[in-house]
Amino acid sequence: MPYRAPLSEYRFLLEHVVGYPAVAATERFAHADLETAVAILNEAGKLAEEVLAPLRRAGDLAPARLENGVVRTPPGYRDAYQAIAAGGWVGASAPEEFGGMGLPQALTACVHEMMSGACLALQLNPLLTQGQIEALAEHADPAIQATYIPKLASGAWSGTMNLTEPQAGSDVGALRTRAEPAGDGSYRITGEKIYITWGDGDVAENISHLVLARLPDAPPGSRGISLFVVPKLLPGPDGAPGERNALRVVGLEKKLGLHGSPTATMSYEGATGWMIGAPNAGLAAMFTMMNNARLLTGVQGVGIAEAAHQAAVAFAADRRQGRTGGGRGTIDEHPDVRRMLLTMEAEVTAARATLLSCAAAIDQGVATGDPAWRARAAFLTPVAKTMGAETGHHVSHEAIQVHGGLGFIEDTGIAQLARDVRVVSIYEGTSGIQAADLVMRKLADGGEAAEALLDEVSRTAKAARSRFPDLAQAVWTAAESLREVTDWLVQDAEAEDRLAGSLAYLRAFAKVFGARHHLAAAIAEPAVGRRAALAGVYVTRVLPRHAADLAEARAGAGDLAALAPQAMPA
Amino acid sequence: MPYRAPLSEYRFLLEHVVGYPAVAATERFAHADLETAVAILNEAGKLAEEVLAPLRRAGDLAPARLENGVVRTPPGYRDAYQAIAAGGWVGASAPEEFGGMGLPQALTACVHEMMSGACLALQLNPLLTQGQIEALAEHADPAIQATYIPKLASGAWSGTMNLTEPQAGSDVGALRTRAEPAGDGSYRITGEKIYITWGDGDVAENISHLVLARLPDAPPGSRGISLFVVPKLLPGPDGAPGERNALRVVGLEKKLGLHGSPTATMSYEGATGWMIGAPNAGLAAMFTMMNNARLLTGVQGVGIAEAAHQAAVAFAADRRQGRTGGGRGTIDEHPDVRRMLLTMEAEVTAARATLLSCAAAIDQGVATGDPAWRARAAFLTPVAKTMGAETGHHVSHEAIQVHGGLGFIEDTGIAQLARDVRVVSIYEGTSGIQAADLVMRKLADGGEAAEALLDEVSRTAKAARSRFPDLAQAVWTAAESLREVTDWLVQDAEAEDRLAGSLAYLRAFAKVFGARHHLAAAIAEPAVGRRAALAGVYVTRVLPRHAADLAEARAGAGDLAALAPQAMPA
Repeated sequence: MPYRAPLSEYRFLLEHVVGYPAVAATERFAHADLETAVAILNEAGKLAEEVLAPLRRAGDLAPARLENGVVRTPPGYRDAYQAIAAGGWVGASAPEEFGGMGLPQALTACVHEMMSGACLALQLNPLLTQGQIEALAEHADPAIQATYIPKLASGAWSGTMNLTEPQAGSDVGALRTRAEPAGDGSYRITGEKIYITWGDGDVAENISHLVLARLPDAPPGSRGISLFVVPKLLPGPDGAPGERNALRVVGLEKKLGLHGSPTATMSYEGATGWMIGAPNAGLAAMFTMMNNARLLTGVQGVGIAEAAHQAAVAFAADRRQGRTGGGRGTIDEHPDVRRMLLTMEAEVTAARATLLSCAAAIDQGVATGDPAWRARAAFLTPVAKTMGAETGHHVSHEAIQVHGGLGFIEDTGIAQLARDVRVVSIYEGTSGIQAADLVMRKLADGGEAAEALLDEVSRTAKAARSRFPDLAQAVWTAAESLREVTDWLVQDAEAEDRLAGSLAYLRAFAKVFGARHHLAAAIAEPAVGRRAALAGVYVTRVLPRHAADLAEARAGAGDLAALAPQAMPA
Repeated sequence: MPYRAPLSEYRFLLEHVVGYPAVAATERFAHADLETAVAILNEAGKLAEEVLAPLRRAGDLAPARLENGVVRTPPGYRDAYQAIAAGGWVGASAPEEFGGMGLPQALTACVHEMMSGACLALQLNPLLTQGQIEALAEHADPAIQATYIPKLASGAWSGTMNLTEPQAGSDVGALRTRAEPAGDGSYRITGEKIYITWGDGDVAENISHLVLARLPDAPPGSRGISLFVVPKLLPGPDGAPGERNALRVVGLEKKLGLHGSPTATMSYEGATGWMIGAPNAGLAAMFTMMNNARLLTGVQGVGIAEAAHQAAVAFAADRRQGRTGGGRGTIDEHPDVRRMLLTMEAEVTAARATLLSCAAAIDQGVATGDPAWRARAAFLTPVAKTMGAETGHHVSHEAIQVHGGLGFIEDTGIAQLARDVRVVSIYEGTSGIQAADLVMRKLADGGEAAEALLDEVSRTAKAARSRFPDLAQAVWTAAESLREVTDWLVQDAEAEDRLAGSLAYLRAFAKVFGARHHLAAAIAEPAVGRRAALAGVYVTRVLPRHAADLAEARAGAGDLAALAPQAMPA
């Protein structure tokens, strides 16, 4: 299944829809003007198309495996990882002082979307490494930074995140791994961690684990957690990897998808580590890593959706079935198939633009320090992560549907996309947790960030009014409905009611904000053309679903509290 | 993962919601009154819980395989199949004169739901056999009936349906398999068929294939197709299986799910067969089989949804995460998790009742010959099939979501449910094909069948008004909206517009009809209780989505026709 990098789409969205020119106009990102950006993305696109895409099926068929305590990755992964590293893509957003490219997240997001669409199982590796770089750049002391970041940014070493334990999934406060001071400034880490993505492998020369653990005197719960960097091979005085640390992989998971990516159970057996940030303040540092990862997991969903849409379009243009008068007789002439294909495209566009808009806000926050940009990024992150993840899930299953019986056959490759992307709605915080973050924390500003985003939607609707009155009116009205529910959530709703409606609210927000991008795209076309038509598809076929979302968002928790989930039927 | 047969639920729905007492009041089904029915379902429930459920994971881990031209099924399947046969479940609905139980479809649907929820890969086998029995009972000549139906009804032989060819998926008119008269009343069948479910196996002593093929002088397209019965082993004069027929399995598919079920590519190489029904009238006979299969594939979706819901409830009642004030600390106390669990239950209830309502209409049609019952069954079949299939898909993925990271791990077993059920929206006609059938054929009566169903919804809403005014009003209003769109589809819409909105219309119909069942269930409770609360969940969280469906159903094909699906991006 070939993959084509959607380069012209990135260029259009960056230039006309998500405000990239303003990012490139900041001093911080002046080195990445639009032309430079396009050239960079072209290079990443070639890598995705030529090097990564051929490995997607291969990794599914020959999963990563554990042999005598050593993880072997699928054939071709090592070379492809080296190509990613050699291209500078692992350190795309890493600070230039540590050897990175210092690119804005808006571009890194495009790079990761292409890598995800081509081979998600391998892309996970640089995704986690990039997150670790950010956590270290923000929280580690200079010696640790000097030792680790250049190695991570160059891809010589890869990075992992060790959070989950068997008894503690989303509930990090319940974790038990211990860290004891060794007396020389280092710590001895002991405990078991599960679901460690790329917890081991044979693609990089060393692996740097970020591990959450408790100091001996730590308070209970989430206020007693510290963060440690724990390398697989201990760096010698020259920084080169030396002696083996006391940690090992004890098992790999057999997963629904992402077979090429080793998901390890890690045992830390008095392993040597160094604290990152302050004692008992590990969660803040970990959240730096997770925040970044949230953006890029949303991006994964869009990458898979793009790949699935491409495959469905190609299949439907080739498959002949049924009588169609005068046409070529291919199934893309059937109204219902065409509906699926065009709705998929409209959904991909909306989710991609939302993620890039979030990325641009992160970049503006970094470049300007303006709290309004930071608040915008913070609000959009759970929305964009969930929207990307759910778009990946939905579009890949629609692509299966377009394939008919062939969609159920693994050889076709389309089922793998749906299997691979399924976890994106779960890791880095499930959709439910993203939604809780949105209504509990992100609305705690009195709704300011939400209102600013809704104002942007309204402004775009106003700007579209003369050329696209019907579309503009639909989006305007939707924004007003969303504003009312936002006010209710901020001013009147109890916590339980907010939580009960949280995911519905997030989904409504995503649909309305996505519609804004479609309008902006339509406006940017000089003559009424494909963008406006696609905006029409979105406004007709996707946006109206926000109304039921909002009805559910406002429904409160009363009906749920009254009814215990049914026990096993008798 | 244990499975519990939802026996009390069947009893309640049969008695109070879907009109089973009226079915049992007919002469035809007088032998199956409610108490007898309950006793029968209890027996089937035991089989599902004790014999079939333990094989679900086993079949996934040890798929059916082809060894030297012979298909080997997973360990335990043969014994379990024999237990199904010994219980009389293969011939549950087969005519008593041929050794069947002659049960109404409303009960057979419950039996198949339990078998599906316990082990879908194995249930497929008796599902197809039952369909073949119906086709033969309606279309075959007496000699064929006498030879084949008793063997099929007892489960000694199993049945398959051979429709698809590589170039002809949903487009049966394009098929090429040839049938040449042998001069002795039999035919020589030659061609290749793909996706033949249980095309071979080691569980029954013989396999009877129903095969669509063309006579030498057949007109092109779908008017030139005849149906043949082609046994794996040719019956001798005494009816016992003898000589090997000229057909073989040339390959098995590697599928997303249903690994335990062998999906064969069959090669017919001058195999001996006998015509069923008239020359060139094979599609009508095949549709008898497919119509039945459509009901039972919808049932499969509900079976998997039931199993997934049970697993999610059990997991959420056990899993402790996060702080909850005063509770047990299990995740089913989180509003968003509780929302998922209760919505899943409400969806399962609505889909199950819709399928049983369709089954009861089939039974009434058979028992009374009343064209109104037949029209009702014909209208509901594509709705119920699609609703069941989509409920299975959606609920199983929600169950994954409730499981969090564990949902992505195959050992948990929940991912398998989602993989297994995925094909249900595809086989026996994709959801798009069901929807096309609904708006093109089933509305061709001027909307009479649809209006009768909507009248029933309105009557139930009226009956609920005094006790449940808000719920009744919501359902009443929804039915009126659906009526308007139905009128538009029947009276004004062009074919392309009907097709463009077909699946949205089907989904709206399913939600409104499903809501009717919830109201009926609430009314049947003597005191306001769990049924009313669940109806509230459905009306609040599922029903409102019908409005966007209807908006899309009315949107027409204009926006789709204007926009070609995008080719590969540059």
